[in-house]
Amino acid sequence: MAVVALTTDFGTTDPFVGIMKGVILARAPGTTLVDVSHGIPPQAVAIGALVLAQAVPWFPPHTIHVAVVDPGVGGARRPVCVETKDALLVGPDNGLLSLAAPPERVRRVVHLTDERFLLSPRSGTFHGRDVFAPVAAALAAGTPATRLGPEVHDLARLALPVAERDGDVVRGQVLYADHFGNLTTNVRADTLGDFPRSGVSTTLRQARIRGIASSYDAVAPGELVAVVNSWGFVEIAVRDGSARDAVGARVGEPVRIEGR
Amino acid sequence: MAVVALTTDFGTTDPFVGIMKGVILARAPGTTLVDVSHGIPPQAVAIGALVLAQAVPWFPPHTIHVAVVDPGVGGARRPVCVETKDALLVGPDNGLLSLAAPPERVRRVVHLTDERFLLSPRSGTFHGRDVFAPVAAALAAGTPATRLGPEVHDLARLALPVAERDGDVVRGQVLYADHFGNLTTNVRADTLGDFPRSGVSTTLRQARIRGIASSYDAVAPGELVAVVNSWGFVEIAVRDGSARDAVGARVGEPVRIEGR
Amino acid sequence: MAVVALTTDFGTTDPFVGIMKGVILARAPGTTLVDVSHGIPPQAVAIGALVLAQAVPWFPPHTIHVAVVDPGVGGARRPVCVETKDALLVGPDNGLLSLAAPPERVRRVVHLTDERFLLSPRSGTFHGRDVFAPVAAALAAGTPATRLGPEVHDLARLALPVAERDGDVVRGQVLYADHFGNLTTNVRADTLGDFPRSGVSTTLRQARIRGIASSYDAVAPGELVAVVNSWGFVEIAVRDGSARDAVGARVGEPVRIEGR
Repeated sequence: MAVVALTTDFGTTDPFVGIMKGVILARAPGTTLVDVSHGIPPQAVAIGALVLAQAVPWFPPHTIHVAVVDPGVGGARRPVCVETKDALLVGPDNGLLSLAAPPERVRRVVHLTDERFLLSPRSGTFHGRDVFAPVAAALAAGTPATRLGPEVHDLARLALPVAERDGDVVRGQVLYADHFGNLTTNVRADTLGDFPRSGVSTTLRQARIRGIASSYDAVAPGELVAVVNSWGFVEIAVRDGSARDAVGARVGEPVRIEGR
Repeated sequence: MAVVALTTDFGTTDPFVGIMKGVILARAPGTTLVDVSHGIPPQAVAIGALVLAQAVPWFPPHTIHVAVVDPGVGGARRPVCVETKDALLVGPDNGLLSLAAPPERVRRVVHLTDERFLLSPRSGTFHGRDVFAPVAAALAAGTPATRLGPEVHDLARLALPVAERDGDVVRGQVLYADHFGNLTTNVRADTLGDFPRSGVSTTLRQARIRGIASSYDAVAPGELVAVVNSWGFVEIAVRDGSARDAVGARVGEPVRIEGR
Repeated sequence: MAVVALTTDFGTTDPFVGIMKGVILARAPGTTLVDVSHGIPPQAVAIGALVLAQAVPWFPPHTIHVAVVDPGVGGARRPVCVETKDALLVGPDNGLLSLAAPPERVRRVVHLTDERFLLSPRSGTFHGRDVFAPVAAALAAGTPATRLGPEVHDLARLALPVAERDGDVVRGQVLYADHFGNLTTNVRADTLGDFPRSGVSTTLRQARIRGIASSYDAVAPGELVAVVNSWGFVEIAVRDGSARDAVGARVGEPVRIEGR
């Protein structure tokens, strides 16, 4: 039984996501549908790409991920299906799929041009319904990606900002702020290398945090703490509170970690 | 395998929707459950009716739609099931189901009175749980609508406001504002008839938009654009932004489209 | 086919809930997944416990409920599975599961220590993904709870505040405020005993409400009304409005009901 997972900036107030699911179930009955998120900020392709990349590895092999954060809908950007070693990614070719599809894991990229697998007529404003949902249904029903259109050999790619280590200092930035107000930085645990975890010092705006803890309860409620989080990145949090509110920091702001 | 789709004003913070799904799965194991929206504004029957009407045509034939926006719960309004040519609609008879059930598509309306298909005892405040969910489960399990109570021959009906054309001028209004701040008007594409698409002029408050585009990218980011949207209506949008915020307009405000 | 229901404070913006579902479907394909709520306020264990307790009785027997409101994640609190007469509850042993597991209904409590059923390596910040989801999957796939770790004989318990009756006066408090602004008190209908329903007087801050109605439409739109709600508690509501906004009351504030 096929699994189709959805990641969009559609919100859940309007019927858009439900309509996509209706189209999928009408064409591929019995499909298991899962929501990854419909709370990507409107048109925030980079955040959508990050969320999708974090989610994909945890799903069953061959899960079909439909992702729609698509400010160029109806325009020149291509609709594509990216087949990787473990998933099928369907969406606009605007970078949204790229973080979940590192080049070494891509098997092929297909330009979704075969009209037989799309709805007709097609709106110029809702390709989630008219293009991506019916293509996901075709894949769920067993159609090979290669039948959906011609193979192409390029894919629009986003790059995460890379944290840089210079001697005893790592310079990174805030990558993502979650619902709890935890701030994920772009500093991977392995970038810290031989830094003694208890000795490092993390600075974000006016906040300075001593050490990297293994869980939030290393500090008292209301205090700042740095941890390596479930995505493998250094995260700045407030125990039982919001680091975003406490520090006032936003995505993109510089973070500095000193090794001693 | 039956599909039950849910449209309510219950939000997703409280356990109300989960409880309805629990009741359905307890009585009709294996049912596929889909959320259309639980973000209908509280007691906004007309918005719920519009959302439901937009969603129903995209679902598999014979999908069971449970809709609950029910300010009169526990009072005199009837609980009903409307069987149409392509769906079963279950909810309060307060107009909520009517836009999805135009008269020419209605096969029958059943008043849900048979106690065997309802929970007992029944609260006076949550018929989603006590009436509509168990009825949906009965339908999902194969019970014909005709067994759920007596057939009745009236249905509370809402009417969408109709846009009127007078020579070269169409007068309509804002019908719906979505999550992106796009403003759907009640002007259908076919009402524009022979107006040259590039020549029309759309006025909403202080905003005046030239032409009707086929997608948002006809204008630069941040600019107003009028399109025919995926529902077939003229929509006023801001590319990569919110027309609701830019124009300050709300549902019900007048829109004027001139043919030259 | 197993049913797994989820109750968390994760929100639906981030991919956390989707990742948990991916883990479950990867290990127990075909599982039916249902959301109870992901809108528990962050770290609000008592509200999560109440929501879970309200939801459990309406689900099919042997539903697996995964609940994660877990401020102590990665710390000393135990991960547990509570097997009751009608459900399997999986989550942190911080009181969250306790209101859904009254002592007389508990069959056993298992400390989730068997590494074979957990992900490895395990983060210190996301046991929803690394502990509770894979355990739910194991249960969904038919693993008996007794194989997941050693049985223990204590469970962290929360107590709901109890309303007290003293002659003709019941003193309680606001227990829960829902999405509509309806205020559920901790006064159960049976605590009112022989009070004549039309004669009681309910006081909350400056508001005084005469009688207990059987549904909201006993009063005019915009007026305050007291009802016995679907959870069996006295609720203070505003018809077609929000009692929370009208009265300005919050969870924990005292409510007084007089019998004459």
